Amino acid sequence: MHPLDEAIALQPLAPGEFTGATHPAYANMVGPFGGTTAAQLLQAAWLHPERIGEPVALTVNFAAPVADGEIRFLARAARTNRSTQHWLIEAQQQGAVVATASAVFALRRETWSAVEASMPQGLPAVDHLSRMPVHGLMPWPQRYDMRFVDGPFPEFDEKEQTHSRSCLWVRDEPARPMDFASLAAISDSFFPRIYLRRRRRVPIGTVTLTTYFHADSALLAEVGARHVLGVAKALNFRHGYFDQTGELWSPEGHLLASTHQLVYFKD
Amino acid sequence: MHPLDEAIALQPLAPGEFTGATHPAYANMVGPFGGTTAAQLLQAAWLHPERIGEPVALTVNFAAPVADGEIRFLARAARTNRSTQHWLIEAQQQGAVVATASAVFALRRETWSAVEASMPQGLPAVDHLSRMPVHGLMPWPQRYDMRFVDGPFPEFDEKEQTHSRSCLWVRDEPARPMDFASLAAISDSFFPRIYLRRRRRVPIGTVTLTTYFHADSALLAEVGARHVLGVAKALNFRHGYFDQTGELWSPEGHLLASTHQLVYFKD
Repeated sequence: MHPLDEAIALQPLAPGEFTGATHPAYANMVGPFGGTTAAQLLQAAWLHPERIGEPVALTVNFAAPVADGEIRFLARAARTNRSTQHWLIEAQQQGAVVATASAVFALRRETWSAVEASMPQGLPAVDHLSRMPVHGLMPWPQRYDMRFVDGPFPEFDEKEQTHSRSCLWVRDEPARPMDFASLAAISDSFFPRIYLRRRRRVPIGTVTLTTYFHADSALLAEVGARHVLGVAKALNFRHGYFDQTGELWSPEGHLLASTHQLVYFKD
Repeated sequence: MHPLDEAIALQPLAPGEFTGATHPAYANMVGPFGGTTAAQLLQAAWLHPERIGEPVALTVNFAAPVADGEIRFLARAARTNRSTQHWLIEAQQQGAVVATASAVFALRRETWSAVEASMPQGLPAVDHLSRMPVHGLMPWPQRYDMRFVDGPFPEFDEKEQTHSRSCLWVRDEPARPMDFASLAAISDSFFPRIYLRRRRRVPIGTVTLTTYFHADSALLAEVGARHVLGVAKALNFRHGYFDQTGELWSPEGHLLASTHQLVYFKD
């Protein structure tokens, strides 16, 4: 079983109520990688017997540090329409809320479609790049195969940069067919942009993360277990908070997801 | 009293429970402008006696059409930390959920700050541009003074465009000092990008809207009742949904808010 599947495994307790747990393979410096928490919250709606369609949007609010151990998930459909469904999901530990989420699920249909954002062109192929060394890192980055074209995890030499752009090929490690859980987690895998700007380690914590899923499961199946292209940048750093934005592209140039987050920092 | 203040006026019924109503001055084709609904949801947390700090993030999920008339708002702090507070807010009509929201409030402190996004340069001054004619439009755009530099509301001539970028000076009409309610509403005032791409009117509806507030109230006070600069573009249109992203800048080049939304369309 893939560690991501172990990490998002939830046991139903009652309708809309599940238990899960943090997974040591996705540990962060303190508590779990936020991407797996996001994937678990999404999974609680996904597994709900009343769920219709597939996710098109997910917002996760990281309300408090998640402690290693058991997590209780509560998911309810706040509103079900003919082709859309709005979910509210909570993660609790010791009876206190540690994360909340909202998700929109939808039955999609074919329409006029077009991509307006620009996928970077002329990139080296995955096989021509080497994987970011993960030896000695926390567990969660070891669960990804990241091959940076630009903007790798910086050395903390304090030589401030004027931008924080990154571009990389990324997939689960070991390789695993792409699905919404994987895409939700990868959307939180862009390192904090302030590390790239300041080239120093400062205390940070994502407070809220929003991901729009442009892909449906048929498109994700085409991606399979290959790498996807990630690009990320920050927009603004001010008075303890910055936001960063990212895109995840299929090798064929489909935008799979766009993702935005607001991050607390101390500097 | 300014119509926006009338529109966001909420009467407390019980702790965390308020009533408000749609306002005819902000009517859309059907029901109210989503920006005022977003501002009302934010206001329900803002007015709560337990609220700490100021908003840094707001996500609104438009779960169902809002009917003209009374709306009941329920706000609760899901988690209060030392310097952040996570809110869950619901809007109900006839006992059914019509919108949900989450908001993060925070006590900010001064830190290293930098803007990474680029404000468009060399723009004509507000006074050198004429206001978008609003005669015959729905009420809500009449509540804004929009002066387009680029990408105005299109003629529906079906001459498809390759991009959907807009750039405009915008303020409340009549002029009103900027605050979080105004900023939340203006964040939803960018016309649907698909109108610009397709140059035809297609059925649309925002399903979810996320705004990050980079400004605190001191910076908003500096903006006062002047115009702010809005820029917007779409990222991707696929199978019934597209996302668009916007930035709102102070005349002095501070990024006040970045905003993202996912929109249903039929085409």
